[in-house]
Amino acid sequence: MESAIPKNLECPRTRARRVADSYVPPYPAYTARALPALERVVMGYFGVQASGAEAQLKSQAALTTIVRGFADTDGPGHHDLAHFVDAAGYDNRIAIAYWRDPVAFARWRSHSDGWWQADERLHEDIGFFREIISPGVEHFETLYNSVDRLEGVGAIMGGVSREIQEHAYWGAARDRIPLAQSDALEPSRPRTMLGNDSAPPGARVRIAGHEHVTIIRSGQDWTETDGKERELYLRQMEPVLREGMEFLRDQGDKVGCYSNRYMRHIDAAGRPLEKTFGLSHWHSLSNLEAWAESHPTHLAIFGGFMRMVQELEFQLKLRLYHEVSILNVGEQEYEYINCHPATGMMRGIAI
Amino acid sequence: MESAIPKNLECPRTRARRVADSYVPPYPAYTARALPALERVVMGYFGVQASGAEAQLKSQAALTTIVRGFADTDGPGHHDLAHFVDAAGYDNRIAIAYWRDPVAFARWRSHSDGWWQADERLHEDIGFFREIISPGVEHFETLYNSVDRLEGVGAIMGGVSREIQEHAYWGAARDRIPLAQSDALEPSRPRTMLGNDSAPPGARVRIAGHEHVTIIRSGQDWTETDGKERELYLRQMEPVLREGMEFLRDQGDKVGCYSNRYMRHIDAAGRPLEKTFGLSHWHSLSNLEAWAESHPTHLAIFGGFMRMVQELEFQLKLRLYHEVSILNVGEQEYEYINCHPATGMMRGIAI
Repeated sequence: MESAIPKNLECPRTRARRVADSYVPPYPAYTARALPALERVVMGYFGVQASGAEAQLKSQAALTTIVRGFADTDGPGHHDLAHFVDAAGYDNRIAIAYWRDPVAFARWRSHSDGWWQADERLHEDIGFFREIISPGVEHFETLYNSVDRLEGVGAIMGGVSREIQEHAYWGAARDRIPLAQSDALEPSRPRTMLGNDSAPPGARVRIAGHEHVTIIRSGQDWTETDGKERELYLRQMEPVLREGMEFLRDQGDKVGCYSNRYMRHIDAAGRPLEKTFGLSHWHSLSNLEAWAESHPTHLAIFGGFMRMVQELEFQLKLRLYHEVSILNVGEQEYEYINCHPATGMMRGIAI
Repeated sequence: MESAIPKNLECPRTRARRVADSYVPPYPAYTARALPALERVVMGYFGVQASGAEAQLKSQAALTTIVRGFADTDGPGHHDLAHFVDAAGYDNRIAIAYWRDPVAFARWRSHSDGWWQADERLHEDIGFFREIISPGVEHFETLYNSVDRLEGVGAIMGGVSREIQEHAYWGAARDRIPLAQSDALEPSRPRTMLGNDSAPPGARVRIAGHEHVTIIRSGQDWTETDGKERELYLRQMEPVLREGMEFLRDQGDKVGCYSNRYMRHIDAAGRPLEKTFGLSHWHSLSNLEAWAESHPTHLAIFGGFMRMVQELEFQLKLRLYHEVSILNVGEQEYEYINCHPATGMMRGIAI
């Protein structure tokens, strides 16, 4: 067993871990590892938004255009496609792309930027958005219940830990974040709007995040499950997971959650896969922790999961993972083109 | 709002609290306060154990004898009576007594000790036990959801805080314990048997606790509830609470719980009141935390409670409290006379 914090990022703790050195978690978990040379990654969420059947066809075509751009020189090392319908009833498709090299991303971006900046984007009957974050390696953590086929940022990091110690207790995510060894990760000022040319829809809006905005992507893959496990997941766990996701989507503002999307993976043709994830943006890690630890919907999710793993004697075919990033001001960029005003980080800001 | 840790026990933290200074709990809670002169309390659990109707009559009479002794000079400032049936089917009655002054307790004890030491105790057809702990004020914490009629040790401390900050999150109990400002509260060696004259039953057995044995008394009083709240408590919360209590009673050894008793208050005549509490002994605070935070039964209790307080808009007539003590070796005394071998701290030790 080893610490989730990589050796090269260890520093003298001014903030104690929640658990003693003798703590042994009840089941194994792993974190993605990179070579020490990796200092920063880029995670790009490129979205299209549409309402109505005809616009959805256009939106799937636009997604395909975006994905085609990933094949360019300096394109991402990994990407996923996902779909969800938001609270306003809009159909949203997102390509999530991961770069191991921020310089390669900058070059890729300089090629693709023209298309995003073009005035035409404002005059199609679909919306577009880019949410691009670039956390340093001290600013994010990952967790997986299996060591092969890592999802998300783990797919580009190139390695995986042995069993880690910091998991299966509340506060473990914080204990896995290298920066939290010496920093409370408190948030600063509120979000601000950087400028828009008119009110949405039909506008180009940019939002500035604040210090320590926290983003979690937390996923589940039930492709390989069968029998009792599949039944437990689909009949018992998924409904409580959905209830929690809908609470955050609809009432997240009460608990410091700016935006939540409960998304289903799709293939390149737009067909659903047996994988979902929640993607949410938070005012702070503390807010995310408080919701996870005390809200009945999340306690039902976590308690249901613990009951399920015990019933299955810790032998899961269900694949679970998450990645949590804590962002500096300059590591976040949110741009919404022709999107409705409750989209992503625009939600709750007077535009 | 103020810290749960009294001003006179504050010291430079080498272990950070789990929450930021800006944390605001979602509902109010309070802790018992004493004058700074109070350095140590004594909590005495005086029990009688019986099987069969006739023995139970004798056991209720013995409890009455014990309680009569509390009226002596230097008797306790407060006591409760409670009843439960243990996993072996024995009827147990306990008088729980609290002293504000360890010297007064020592004097009281010197008067009553002869009765406990007498050979006659070994030859009645009921069992007796004494579990006496004497934590210093840095070694325990209390929590109440209302400020009047404090239960347990709060009844002798004489005062109560304003709203405190450290509650409603996992790890809050630790953050309320003064000693935890600078100590991980890790346990030492295992329990040991100090000697017995023959195998129980029919024996006098003493058990030595180890460093940082953790004892929690956690109670609920539904006397004043009515309508929807009473219904929610009795129909939804009590069954999951009972399931958790039975798990600890029957399988607690798997999670570091030496003993658990889910007890109902009784009046002096032995009639049940509308108040219960769980009383459990643990290998460490970490073990107690781990169970509370991850076991499906406790997550169901806590999640059910959070759902209930939200449904009732944080207006509870249900009274809730707990007290947690972390004990040094010399602050614990466990003596079992003629009790079955799974009683209290004897459980799981080869006698």
